[in-house]
Amino acid sequence: MVRGVTDLAARLHHPLPDLTPAPKTLGDIEGLRVAGVRAGIKASGNPDVALLVAEHAVDVAAVFTQNKFAAAPVIVCREHLAKSGGRIRAIVVNSGNANACTGDEGLQNARNMCAQVARLVGCAAEEVLVASTGVIGVPLPMEKVRAGIQAAFEGLSAGPEAGRSFLAAIQTTDAYPKEAATTGDHWSVAGVCKGAGMIAPNMATMLAFVATDAPVEVATLGDRVRSVARRSFNAVHVDSHPSTNDSFFVIATRRGPEPVHFGAALEATCKRLAWLIARDGEGATKVTTIHVTGAASDAAAQAIARRVAESALVRTALFGNDPNWGRFVSQVGNASECGSVRGLVCVLQGIPVFENDAPTAFDRAAASQAMAAEDVLLELRLTEGTGAGVVLTSDLGYRYVEVNAEYTT
Amino acid sequence: MVRGVTDLAARLHHPLPDLTPAPKTLGDIEGLRVAGVRAGIKASGNPDVALLVAEHAVDVAAVFTQNKFAAAPVIVCREHLAKSGGRIRAIVVNSGNANACTGDEGLQNARNMCAQVARLVGCAAEEVLVASTGVIGVPLPMEKVRAGIQAAFEGLSAGPEAGRSFLAAIQTTDAYPKEAATTGDHWSVAGVCKGAGMIAPNMATMLAFVATDAPVEVATLGDRVRSVARRSFNAVHVDSHPSTNDSFFVIATRRGPEPVHFGAALEATCKRLAWLIARDGEGATKVTTIHVTGAASDAAAQAIARRVAESALVRTALFGNDPNWGRFVSQVGNASECGSVRGLVCVLQGIPVFENDAPTAFDRAAASQAMAAEDVLLELRLTEGTGAGVVLTSDLGYRYVEVNAEYTT
Repeated sequence: MVRGVTDLAARLHHPLPDLTPAPKTLGDIEGLRVAGVRAGIKASGNPDVALLVAEHAVDVAAVFTQNKFAAAPVIVCREHLAKSGGRIRAIVVNSGNANACTGDEGLQNARNMCAQVARLVGCAAEEVLVASTGVIGVPLPMEKVRAGIQAAFEGLSAGPEAGRSFLAAIQTTDAYPKEAATTGDHWSVAGVCKGAGMIAPNMATMLAFVATDAPVEVATLGDRVRSVARRSFNAVHVDSHPSTNDSFFVIATRRGPEPVHFGAALEATCKRLAWLIARDGEGATKVTTIHVTGAASDAAAQAIARRVAESALVRTALFGNDPNWGRFVSQVGNASECGSVRGLVCVLQGIPVFENDAPTAFDRAAASQAMAAEDVLLELRLTEGTGAGVVLTSDLGYRYVEVNAEYTT
Repeated sequence: MVRGVTDLAARLHHPLPDLTPAPKTLGDIEGLRVAGVRAGIKASGNPDVALLVAEHAVDVAAVFTQNKFAAAPVIVCREHLAKSGGRIRAIVVNSGNANACTGDEGLQNARNMCAQVARLVGCAAEEVLVASTGVIGVPLPMEKVRAGIQAAFEGLSAGPEAGRSFLAAIQTTDAYPKEAATTGDHWSVAGVCKGAGMIAPNMATMLAFVATDAPVEVATLGDRVRSVARRSFNAVHVDSHPSTNDSFFVIATRRGPEPVHFGAALEATCKRLAWLIARDGEGATKVTTIHVTGAASDAAAQAIARRVAESALVRTALFGNDPNWGRFVSQVGNASECGSVRGLVCVLQGIPVFENDAPTAFDRAAASQAMAAEDVLLELRLTEGTGAGVVLTSDLGYRYVEVNAEYTT
């Protein structure tokens, strides 16, 4: 069977997902003021400097890229977190320039951004963190950055409008704003992020800023952030190419016994943000959740799910709504973390397509139709243990090639 | 800069490489007779059963897929090689059906193919090997296979025409025939292969058959084949998706002190075959050789090169002739086998684009033009040790998506 070529080719320009505004924004978190301004770093003239300032020192935990080409702001954040013990007053962000692969000058520029904010806020430089996203290998236009920081400081404000101006100023080629929030009883978790893979050429980054005014147990905040990152942002796959600037911050404005649902709220917020990134993977038409169970361990399950997500054959089949079980199950067999494929079951959108070590007599047309959804669930059930893991992947279509082969900076 | 969209889109249908016929074929190797026939396994009516028979027992060494979904013929080959100690009389091949994920019936069918050849040739079943390539998960049409084997046996012959009929019968969706040979003083190494990734949906496989009438040292043949495989076929990357049927056989018809140049001839032959596979990666417009040096070990260098080859961002940049050094060097930083990127140098087609930890002021237009070649060399020089490794990768263009998203079986 040959499908309609024009049908899929028409999907070069795909519709955006339905987005409902989050009930709260960063600007609604008690104790924080935020701003986003146009500093002229981006040629487009879009907002490109964002600032978050806390009334008093707040707890922060963060995870950063594992790429050995860590960008200057990532290096400075690591230093400042070590010095400040995770108590900070502000985070400054610029978009339009990643300040990555910029050598000693780049490091000095990242430090100068923090020092300027520290002077304005009246705190130590190590109480300020910094993040950048955009073109790699180009020095920051520091005059514009300085003026932008000054303007952002003067524009600091609370409330949803301020929260959304912060969000607008951290985006690069994102197709839509990415925000999520969960509210509890007199507390909220609210977050924003940006990223669509290592998007247009030389653009780097996933950045996420999540804040809460729920009381938190500071002793366990770091562990909690790492574990949430593993199950949300680190479970997203767009193109096997982690960037030089990936950073995820969680800011907590209060300490104390945590509300019962705080952990779940943080995780739900971050998972929604992660979904929004996967959905905005270049040219993506859907998000596929690859759910591996029955592996030898959770780590093995996660690695197997990632291996499946990384296959260009799997991802083009997802784009083409092709219930191509052979690609899905054979990639499980390629994962070194998989000891045996005996008894492997593959279920696609609830339809068993492979079991008892052979394909089932499923209805291909119905399965293909079921795959033409915005959310697709691909379950792979092994029989080696109780390990489970999830990876969210974008699909691979013409537009991915267009975005990444046709344009350069 | 936005490049001409229509320019690249026009490359959906790319030209084939220039092919010169190999000076020798499998049919020219002394002591072998070969054949390829039409058995009707393929709906297209193209040749689909191939047979190779040796006059007397010959040495064979082989390497197979590491996929845990090893196809039935791979399982049977492993059994027969263990029983026969690597002394065989024949190899039977079918295309159009991979006999993979076909359960116990598939195993029995693979055994029956060997048994039939053994009866015709007059040898033990374990002296016959078997390979299959094509659709996964469909039982072999054994009546057609049986008739095809009988016809191939009756048509066995020596010489170039027979060699090319064998080659024609092992192909599936290959865009062109793949053969290579190197000749010495009264001896030759000749080989054929098929494969273009895990190509059209549900199609599996890289298969390679190389034979020599040079004297070989049988004690070291296995090691030699594994090491040549590592530097040729295992160094090819199309889509991170090793198939269920990958098999590489080396047949040696004579034992004795090896000619001085035999090792180099075997490697050159296999490397040419590997290049032909990478060049035929779906939609590929070129072959890029990723050469990593200065790594902690050869294994680390190979792993880093593979990591770079696996990035869809790298591969779309290659398709777009985009000298996007940020993608190349940042992916080195993502490889766990890379300890430090300090001093990393990146040279693209002889043009240094990154050194002294920063991009050079290279001429982008000239570099882009240099990338518009059929062979591209991407050098990545680390400063961690003396390990070196090479991976050949296809690029990623529109046609890859078309082939893999638009068609299904």
